[in-house]
Amino acid sequence: MKLYSLKNGVNPRRVRIFLAEKRVSIPIEEFDMETAGHKAPAFLAKNPLGTLPVLELDDGTLITESVAICRYFEEMIPEPPLFGRSTLERALVEMWNRRMELELLLPVIDVFVHTNPFWKGRRPQVPAWGEARRAQLADRMRWLDGELKDREFIGVDRYNIADITAQVALLTARGALKLAIPEDHKNLSRWWASVSSRPTARA
Amino acid sequence: MKLYSLKNGVNPRRVRIFLAEKRVSIPIEEFDMETAGHKAPAFLAKNPLGTLPVLELDDGTLITESVAICRYFEEMIPEPPLFGRSTLERALVEMWNRRMELELLLPVIDVFVHTNPFWKGRRPQVPAWGEARRAQLADRMRWLDGELKDREFIGVDRYNIADITAQVALLTARGALKLAIPEDHKNLSRWWASVSSRPTARA
Repeated sequence: MKLYSLKNGVNPRRVRIFLAEKRVSIPIEEFDMETAGHKAPAFLAKNPLGTLPVLELDDGTLITESVAICRYFEEMIPEPPLFGRSTLERALVEMWNRRMELELLLPVIDVFVHTNPFWKGRRPQVPAWGEARRAQLADRMRWLDGELKDREFIGVDRYNIADITAQVALLTARGALKLAIPEDHKNLSRWWASVSSRPTARA
Repeated sequence: MKLYSLKNGVNPRRVRIFLAEKRVSIPIEEFDMETAGHKAPAFLAKNPLGTLPVLELDDGTLITESVAICRYFEEMIPEPPLFGRSTLERALVEMWNRRMELELLLPVIDVFVHTNPFWKGRRPQVPAWGEARRAQLADRMRWLDGELKDREFIGVDRYNIADITAQVALLTARGALKLAIPEDHKNLSRWWASVSSRPTARA
């Protein structure tokens, strides 16, 4: 078994934190955006979309998409449960993980890809779209601050994959977009201090 | 239990097809985009994001996000399995459902929202983004045609939620975007003829 990852990649970090929470250690082959080996023919034969992470099983089966990889490990190593412990909890974790993806993670990636000079020539850039997403992001951070008023974690009362998704989104916002959590977002700031101080946060 | 749905809504249709495949019938309250009752305060109290569908359980618990609602029913009514039957199958269905969302469904919605006059004044439109997504969509339809070469269904060898997602995306592409599957995409056309003739396809 082997994980293909990407240095500083937003999605690969989701999987690495997830695996660290499960106390799983597997071989990792790391690509980087400068040399972009994951866009070369040898790797495109494994994943024609050229996305990372990719999990390769011992029989050669390839699993792409971060959450698919995480779900595979959730079933193989159930403890601690990061997708919820009951039918209802699993539905709520799915709901909140998707909200964190659609409302935070995808906007963060769009702002980065469409407004940062790094991506010029690498991807078609539409700066106006990046700016629209930046506005959405500010709005959703305020919304999430309200949702965390009486909650320690996102969606359910234990640390879960929705926390990981939000955490990676906001880490990227702060690092690549220079967009920190506003000081008056007290609940979101408290949550951030808690999740980012976990031993797995820099996996 | 009650499902809040949206007439002609792309995501609510995913859930309605899923429920029809499970032979589940529950009360549905239908909103429409013209009167937009789902953007009024009474409904925003249930879902501040104003998205549909929403499932309301008898104890008042609210589940938003199509796939979260589907996953809840998958656990309550396991047959037929639409998320896969084994650990590996479930990982592959998750992978393919996400590919269908990221590579087809979200681009279809973006082309519609950013280039169709219906959305003018309703949502910030960035036409250049809509056009970039239209190009992506053409590319991904060709890719999916290749992936379906030796396959009856998407990802695994039984009809599953990734088929539903792709089917709803391509139904919307054809209806709202006037973008049909190109004739030389033989595998995708065969798959489309098969899934769109299922009794549940117009749920």
